[in-house]
Amino acid sequence: MPLTASQASEIDTLRDEQAPTRRDISPALEEMLYKAFPVLDHGFVRVIDYMGNDSAIVQAARVSYGRGTKKVNEDAGLINYLMRHRHTTPFEMCEIKFHIKLPIFIARQWIRHRTANVNEYSGRYSIMDKEFYIPAPEQLAAQSKSNRQGRGQLLEGREAARVLDILKDDATRAYGHYEEMLNEDLEGNILKEGQTGLARELARMNLTLNFYTQWYWKIDLHNLLHFLSLRADAHAQYEIRAYAEVMLDMLKAWVPITYQAFMDYRMGGAALSGKGLAIIRRLIAGEKVAQEQSGMSKGEWRELMEVLGQEV
Amino acid sequence: MPLTASQASEIDTLRDEQAPTRRDISPALEEMLYKAFPVLDHGFVRVIDYMGNDSAIVQAARVSYGRGTKKVNEDAGLINYLMRHRHTTPFEMCEIKFHIKLPIFIARQWIRHRTANVNEYSGRYSIMDKEFYIPAPEQLAAQSKSNRQGRGQLLEGREAARVLDILKDDATRAYGHYEEMLNEDLEGNILKEGQTGLARELARMNLTLNFYTQWYWKIDLHNLLHFLSLRADAHAQYEIRAYAEVMLDMLKAWVPITYQAFMDYRMGGAALSGKGLAIIRRLIAGEKVAQEQSGMSKGEWRELMEVLGQEV
Amino acid sequence: MPLTASQASEIDTLRDEQAPTRRDISPALEEMLYKAFPVLDHGFVRVIDYMGNDSAIVQAARVSYGRGTKKVNEDAGLINYLMRHRHTTPFEMCEIKFHIKLPIFIARQWIRHRTANVNEYSGRYSIMDKEFYIPAPEQLAAQSKSNRQGRGQLLEGREAARVLDILKDDATRAYGHYEEMLNEDLEGNILKEGQTGLARELARMNLTLNFYTQWYWKIDLHNLLHFLSLRADAHAQYEIRAYAEVMLDMLKAWVPITYQAFMDYRMGGAALSGKGLAIIRRLIAGEKVAQEQSGMSKGEWRELMEVLGQEV
Amino acid sequence: MPLTASQASEIDTLRDEQAPTRRDISPALEEMLYKAFPVLDHGFVRVIDYMGNDSAIVQAARVSYGRGTKKVNEDAGLINYLMRHRHTTPFEMCEIKFHIKLPIFIARQWIRHRTANVNEYSGRYSIMDKEFYIPAPEQLAAQSKSNRQGRGQLLEGREAARVLDILKDDATRAYGHYEEMLNEDLEGNILKEGQTGLARELARMNLTLNFYTQWYWKIDLHNLLHFLSLRADAHAQYEIRAYAEVMLDMLKAWVPITYQAFMDYRMGGAALSGKGLAIIRRLIAGEKVAQEQSGMSKGEWRELMEVLGQEV
Repeated sequence: MPLTASQASEIDTLRDEQAPTRRDISPALEEMLYKAFPVLDHGFVRVIDYMGNDSAIVQAARVSYGRGTKKVNEDAGLINYLMRHRHTTPFEMCEIKFHIKLPIFIARQWIRHRTANVNEYSGRYSIMDKEFYIPAPEQLAAQSKSNRQGRGQLLEGREAARVLDILKDDATRAYGHYEEMLNEDLEGNILKEGQTGLARELARMNLTLNFYTQWYWKIDLHNLLHFLSLRADAHAQYEIRAYAEVMLDMLKAWVPITYQAFMDYRMGGAALSGKGLAIIRRLIAGEKVAQEQSGMSKGEWRELMEVLGQEV
Repeated sequence: MPLTASQASEIDTLRDEQAPTRRDISPALEEMLYKAFPVLDHGFVRVIDYMGNDSAIVQAARVSYGRGTKKVNEDAGLINYLMRHRHTTPFEMCEIKFHIKLPIFIARQWIRHRTANVNEYSGRYSIMDKEFYIPAPEQLAAQSKSNRQGRGQLLEGREAARVLDILKDDATRAYGHYEEMLNEDLEGNILKEGQTGLARELARMNLTLNFYTQWYWKIDLHNLLHFLSLRADAHAQYEIRAYAEVMLDMLKAWVPITYQAFMDYRMGGAALSGKGLAIIRRLIAGEKVAQEQSGMSKGEWRELMEVLGQEV
Repeated sequence: MPLTASQASEIDTLRDEQAPTRRDISPALEEMLYKAFPVLDHGFVRVIDYMGNDSAIVQAARVSYGRGTKKVNEDAGLINYLMRHRHTTPFEMCEIKFHIKLPIFIARQWIRHRTANVNEYSGRYSIMDKEFYIPAPEQLAAQSKSNRQGRGQLLEGREAARVLDILKDDATRAYGHYEEMLNEDLEGNILKEGQTGLARELARMNLTLNFYTQWYWKIDLHNLLHFLSLRADAHAQYEIRAYAEVMLDMLKAWVPITYQAFMDYRMGGAALSGKGLAIIRRLIAGEKVAQEQSGMSKGEWRELMEVLGQEV
Repeated sequence: MPLTASQASEIDTLRDEQAPTRRDISPALEEMLYKAFPVLDHGFVRVIDYMGNDSAIVQAARVSYGRGTKKVNEDAGLINYLMRHRHTTPFEMCEIKFHIKLPIFIARQWIRHRTANVNEYSGRYSIMDKEFYIPAPEQLAAQSKSNRQGRGQLLEGREAARVLDILKDDATRAYGHYEEMLNEDLEGNILKEGQTGLARELARMNLTLNFYTQWYWKIDLHNLLHFLSLRADAHAQYEIRAYAEVMLDMLKAWVPITYQAFMDYRMGGAALSGKGLAIIRRLIAGEKVAQEQSGMSKGEWRELMEVLGQEV
């Protein structure tokens, strides 16, 4: 369970309050607001706030005085055009703020997206929670043979069981020692009289990278789309993809027209090279082309054939 | 008048609509929302949208589950602490979006703040309005003698009148020729049959730098404070300071606690060098110190004495 | 002529000096260093400094202890891979600094690329030069009919001549009045005794947007490629494309392997949507597809056919 | 020892190569180039490349055609002026690239500086080294009583010994299990036949936060100064301060004039609030002021008295 009872109750209290506003509203996202959507074994994503909606994109693109919307049709046409031509600035006019709980090794990938604002829970100031990520058995896979940084076949039987034991034991021991070094538990109880306890900023170094951390993370829509296009992609590490997929549902609730355009032009699309386009033209003309005459490396050829749905 | 009747009516329509939201609200800023606050002779600033308020800063600093606020007192204490120690990330958790109409030569200064999102009215796509900035007579000043990039004494009589004539005539002629080259006026009327008209992206080069442009400009609170600390400063060019001062009022309505902290720590404060601090210690100890023994240049000494309210 | 004799001589002096360094070198770019490459009628681009070369990209991608290079072949393979998969961070490890002289209306487009460092010549501090851009006759075109923000057919005869006259006259008059208001010319001569002259920060507003400004502009290689992909594109305004094209030659001298990859994957490539890929698969399978059954708008269909080299 | 023999030899080979360049040179930094300066027990900082020097700052501030330097004196005057008035853009015209080996919990603090370019060693692609940070005994301190996120009194005797034992044992065990789960050691030997081994991107989560990682880190001088002002500060965590201090020496070698200005205006200086300045004026006038009448909180008053070198 990612939330304690008191956290859940704080959230419920917040959700009960409503107030009138003159600002753009996204009704479907209002429904989701503050709720913790679970990810992995102890993580979650919550939307804390948002600015703008599909109309706000149109309004900014037109630098208009009133609401952007004229007709839904026209708005969709304009948003598709902006997406297709990579006119990115109108999408920057929407903003969203999340509260996210995630394992540290995933936080380390995530933070590489520099165009966001972040406030992370401080392990210098506070005691870290006793929560760590243990993969579900169907996620335990070997190093991929074809892709040098991904996963391949599943681990099975005793090997899988041994991995799970190691991960649980080492994290549990690490946390026990963390408390012992702090000489204090989460409730603030001193463990051994006469000892001073180690500073939090030092003791935390004994935790393993699967411990959970939390942060507030705020980003504009354009940069969110970029994040999602990389992290909801099939080549992303499963554990970050799990977050990206939940966020895609939030995106759909927030800016449904933009979501459709994004799914068509970005998630479902592909960037082709000049060589790739030349080959496509020959294929359309009915020519047979083989990798050897393509001027492409084997890897590049395989990627192109995948995009074209051709067998290699 | 910065607005046409139809623009004013679009704004009124927007202001009449309200809808319930679960998000943080800033009631005093809601009152201002969408209204055009006039600046200079034809410019304005409008708040189009905002995210967060003083509580959101506290909430982010604590990475909390509920509303940040415990007591107003505590919130102010924390916000003062964050401001004093330049813990800037919680301020980045608030965002604001403006619609601004401003002369091009001011837009050129403004855009140097790179941490904002911008959508500008396009002179490639649309015809520019016939509106240009003419300074009020009390703004016509000579180059400063002491500060090599500011203004000094006022221009008077015939010299001032001549300046105003030049500015008006040249801008009027430039716009007339702009229309002639476009072969089209703002209403889309063709001026001379049989001529093709020059492309908008070219014709605009004939306009002078005091013509007005417009943009949507969105920025987080931390970067807005940085902008205001530079542009509401006495050394800023008057024409951009006029905008910054209107925006300070909006800041006060939006995040009153942060505004107070900002006015005390940033606008009213000063950064002192190690040399400056050493001199202050000597002065407090009752010593007399003169510029010659200070290790400071004359300019630096004068600046320090100003900060200390001492005569030079 | 974009340079005065004394500027040219300063540059020659600089070029004569050489010193040994342990850093990565790009010999072909060293040859170009400091030289002013002319653009438009009075503009130029100069490379002032650079950091890294193709090897530095490889070295960073491998986080290696020595020089990145193993074999040129392998380096090219890795750089192609990085470009294809949009692994952008290794390209950020190279940096280049330019000195650019350009018309203000182009500077206003250019500055929208926010990920660069800029120092612009200050019109608050200094007097602007008397140099303005007048398009060559073959650049005087009408507004495009098909593309709402570009150029179409050429202007001819009297209409073209009239445009050139207007541009020259208005800029000349504007500069004359600028000097008159300053009451000072570029050499610092006072024009009328007994007048104070208007502050520079004000007088400059009378200049037209085709006057030249200058700046130092520094950017990393990844962001430079993004800039060039937009500004060397056929849809960019001619006046900024002229700069981008000169910079492409500099890119080629600096990082020849990256340049090749960029020309193939980015400049010569295209981003296709999911719908577009589905149509390509059908075309390859020998099917006939018409716009009406494609699910695409007319504009989108025309763009796809262009990419595929098909008649519409 | 932070380097293996083969890494040291790669570095020596690099250092032996020199080539002529027309670019700005910083001779003292050339001497340091590529060398690994040790930090903590296994970490280091190496300068890999740099762009510009003190002259380049002056050159950019003047947007000049030749070398910035006129006289060293004038350059220092201008650089002091720029530093004092926070004219930051000329400092952005210099750039430096480091190779840094550091513990992961420090890397997590470091990466929060978003204005740098980073390439980190990939634990998805490669096996992590068996190197972890163990604090020196004189660094083992308790949580500070006065400052809620720092260190206070030293740990002693058995408590300190116990902490060191825990840290060593847990990191050693974590790495042993990491290898076991990978079913592969650093040399690529398979440990148990018939097992597949866990993907690297998963196995790494068992490592503790004191394991070392490495990255290439590139930043402009302005942002480097900001980083150093926060991380070489007495309130920074010791482990990151240790890096910042080594980098201050590199800064001094690279841009000695800027270094002096930075040490005076930033490291040795202080930002005072409006209230603080008012109190200073009263103190200089010979008045006695106590915290109770100051309008300041106790914490703020204590900080002011420290800056003024007064007893509280």
